[in-house]
Amino acid sequence: MSLVNGVPSDCLSARDRGLAFGDGVFRTLRVRGGQPLWWKDHYAKLEHDAAVLNLPCPQTTVLQDEIERLAAGQDGVAKLILTRGGGPRGYAPPPQPQVTRIVTFDSSPADSAEQCVADISVRWCDLRLGRQPRLAGIKHLNRLENVLARAEWQDPDIHEGLLCDDTNAVVSGVMGNLFIVNEGRLQTPDLTCCGVAGVARSRILRAAHQRGIDVEVRRIMPDAVLDADEVMLCNSVQGIRRVARLEDKTWSACGWADSLNAWLYEVD
Amino acid sequence: MSLVNGVPSDCLSARDRGLAFGDGVFRTLRVRGGQPLWWKDHYAKLEHDAAVLNLPCPQTTVLQDEIERLAAGQDGVAKLILTRGGGPRGYAPPPQPQVTRIVTFDSSPADSAEQCVADISVRWCDLRLGRQPRLAGIKHLNRLENVLARAEWQDPDIHEGLLCDDTNAVVSGVMGNLFIVNEGRLQTPDLTCCGVAGVARSRILRAAHQRGIDVEVRRIMPDAVLDADEVMLCNSVQGIRRVARLEDKTWSACGWADSLNAWLYEVD
Repeated sequence: MSLVNGVPSDCLSARDRGLAFGDGVFRTLRVRGGQPLWWKDHYAKLEHDAAVLNLPCPQTTVLQDEIERLAAGQDGVAKLILTRGGGPRGYAPPPQPQVTRIVTFDSSPADSAEQCVADISVRWCDLRLGRQPRLAGIKHLNRLENVLARAEWQDPDIHEGLLCDDTNAVVSGVMGNLFIVNEGRLQTPDLTCCGVAGVARSRILRAAHQRGIDVEVRRIMPDAVLDADEVMLCNSVQGIRRVARLEDKTWSACGWADSLNAWLYEVD
Repeated sequence: MSLVNGVPSDCLSARDRGLAFGDGVFRTLRVRGGQPLWWKDHYAKLEHDAAVLNLPCPQTTVLQDEIERLAAGQDGVAKLILTRGGGPRGYAPPPQPQVTRIVTFDSSPADSAEQCVADISVRWCDLRLGRQPRLAGIKHLNRLENVLARAEWQDPDIHEGLLCDDTNAVVSGVMGNLFIVNEGRLQTPDLTCCGVAGVARSRILRAAHQRGIDVEVRRIMPDAVLDADEVMLCNSVQGIRRVARLEDKTWSACGWADSLNAWLYEVD
């Protein structure tokens, strides 16, 4: 079920710049009882990312209402896409773009992420992310690197892949952000050159700040992940997941994942 | 006017992976009297690029027929898009993708590129291309870098922008490939880390080879462009264009652009 510019439709113009160039941004978020979870953060992030592409962002109430119309009180996952709309052929952005907004919703059982942190198995991806500071951090529609990385494994027992950049620094998972704990210090990769700075990550950073806990946003090499006391991945749909296995290496829970998960749901 | 999977339509599914992730490839090409120009090269390139993404490519006759149906004997420009189609949410490519093919056509006056090489003014772009060898050379739908680069100028007297990578090597124009002549040697940038290896470029390389003329495919720095005897940009729609001005620097024609343009149309 989807709304395109507020109208029930599954149809996008074949000439939309979202298709032609990936010229747009998106959000994927959890819906509970018909309400978008962490909406204020998601809207702020969408507005920020749109601004990086010089794309006007619809008002928060417009998007929130559309999610609620589609969700009709159910639990599930919503996706919002904003594109620069149509225009003549060619890369030049139209001076007055007519933004296309697409809201889709899929109902799914209420998540249990809040109650319990899932343990997952992950692998290293072979693909190395290219570095592009102009697009780093934002969730734009140019996601072929993620597609190629996710295509590296079919084993359903592997839940995520860890991505490094072309300097071999660890950036994130394919589908979520990374936190590790090393010698009692909470750390997460710096994302100024590549990767997506997701809403779950920003909520954890804010929660840590409110609790007076330092988080080191820094360059993290693969050895630091292997030496960590706890390794966690997070995103808006699945919350915090604890890495129990990374290829040959295994970890037992040591409490950080449960703490971060609690922060994620409690933070203002 | 467009055909989506062979059916007259302007409508793409809002859940298509071409929109969601830019998960697809495309071609833009000239049509003369209803026939796609340089079709054999365009199809070979489309098939190659699709294979890099592990995307099945429709048969050549299917695509050629669809272009001819839309063009109905006219001159103009056709665009072909192949995407990995629909599928469940998430980056993982479906094991048996149902490829979406989109053919659009816009009629336009017969081009004069074959008869006469246009002189153009170009600028340096500030944006630096990120390097991603896994996607370099192919014309995929992740084109935000080109959009950001093209957005750097509005002056209609500037026809193209020159792009460098993050090591400051010159890669291409925003919309076409680059050739320069330095001390009598024809040179074009190496595209193993970024950029698009277009059909006009490959025709010129083939034509030079057939004539026994060496082309150096190499790393080219901005100073080499400024010191060149002739600077040219090429693509499938506009043919060869000669750079007459690059910011403060100007050039008079010295014959190479006319030669390359002749090769472009003559080559087998």
